[in-house]
Amino acid sequence: MQILQVRQQLVLTSRLDDMGHLPIKVLTTASGEVFVAMDPIGTKNGDWVFTIANSAARDAAGDKRYLTDLTVGGIIDDWQPDQM
Amino acid sequence: MQILQVRQQLVLTSRLDDMGHLPIKVLTTASGEVFVAMDPIGTKNGDWVFTIANSAARDAAGDKRYLTDLTVGGIIDDWQPDQM
Amino acid sequence: MQILQVRQQLVLTSRLDDMGHLPIKVLTTASGEVFVAMDPIGTKNGDWVFTIANSAARDAAGDKRYLTDLTVGGIIDDWQPDQM
Amino acid sequence: MQILQVRQQLVLTSRLDDMGHLPIKVLTTASGEVFVAMDPIGTKNGDWVFTIANSAARDAAGDKRYLTDLTVGGIIDDWQPDQM
Amino acid sequence: MQILQVRQQLVLTSRLDDMGHLPIKVLTTASGEVFVAMDPIGTKNGDWVFTIANSAARDAAGDKRYLTDLTVGGIIDDWQPDQM
Repeated sequence: MQILQVRQQLVLTSRLDDMGHLPIKVLTTASGEVFVAMDPIGTKNGDWVFTIANSAARDAAGDKRYLTDLTVGGIIDDWQPDQM
Repeated sequence: MQILQVRQQLVLTSRLDDMGHLPIKVLTTASGEVFVAMDPIGTKNGDWVFTIANSAARDAAGDKRYLTDLTVGGIIDDWQPDQM
Repeated sequence: MQILQVRQQLVLTSRLDDMGHLPIKVLTTASGEVFVAMDPIGTKNGDWVFTIANSAARDAAGDKRYLTDLTVGGIIDDWQPDQM
Repeated sequence: MQILQVRQQLVLTSRLDDMGHLPIKVLTTASGEVFVAMDPIGTKNGDWVFTIANSAARDAAGDKRYLTDLTVGGIIDDWQPDQM
Repeated sequence: MQILQVRQQLVLTSRLDDMGHLPIKVLTTASGEVFVAMDPIGTKNGDWVFTIANSAARDAAGDKRYLTDLTVGGIIDDWQPDQM
């Protein structure tokens, strides 16, 4: 699992039917790498979260049929990215 | 999931039978890394899209038997790669 | 599998129900890259461990339903990260 | 999926029984990173191909029991690695 | 699949029950990146091998229940890492 910061919701002009109705968020690592994840938790921009990848991501989104490889798993309390 | 830009369709001289009939596209990250993905959406060159990897990629292509590890999931509206 | 050092327990303000009750730990590689893993072993901060990824991570956590892509598999005896 | 160039067949002194009888090839990315893949297509050294990873790689090799995480999916017509 | 060199057996003070009884080896890439893999082949330190990742790794270890994401698949004959 990875630690990422929520940056914005993704606005899509077309998408697959089986994406479900969860918001899709753009997130970045502390070093600026960009990822996209489903958000079943209801995060706000700026939140630090951890994300779950691959097959567990589909169950984490709430339905094994959802088409995702990355899902937000939880919001981290008071994370300082350079505390490591 | 990742954000990639569609660059061109891939022209193949031979390929496996179970690839299905979807177009196969070459895509790049903002920093130039190259990927190949199935495209069930009908993207145009230059479109910014997000891609779904691994087991969900097969369902995203429309049939669990399709031989893919990366599939286009949606077209992003008005993406600026350096807005992050 | 990877070799990582346990740094701290992750404090979460909200998380998915199916994470189970195992502690979730922050770990770093020898070069400082950050990961998050479930810990069914009971590691202490500073321990060097190896981690198991993806589908095996769920079984390693003790229950296939657990939402994880990375789980601690064992504590390494007397590891010197720069001995390689 | 990735774009790789076939470099040579791999010569093995011992290997697992369930690898099947397909040739195993060494391939490199345009930047020189080395991978190993099963080749059900019959590529020649120097061919540019795309490769399929993870669970789809096993089906791509022709039998779900084959022990592979990377399989050649097709030969690319007239690929120029620096055309991107 | 990847090409790695076997460096040493991993000595563990505690580990999960379902790891099975195969030796667990530390391996490095030609550029020094460190991985851990199960070894059903009986490699010696210094051997160059290729490794199988993710779901195929579990079957490669000889039992789908084994908790591994990386398993040695074969010993490479006379590999020169800088021959590529």
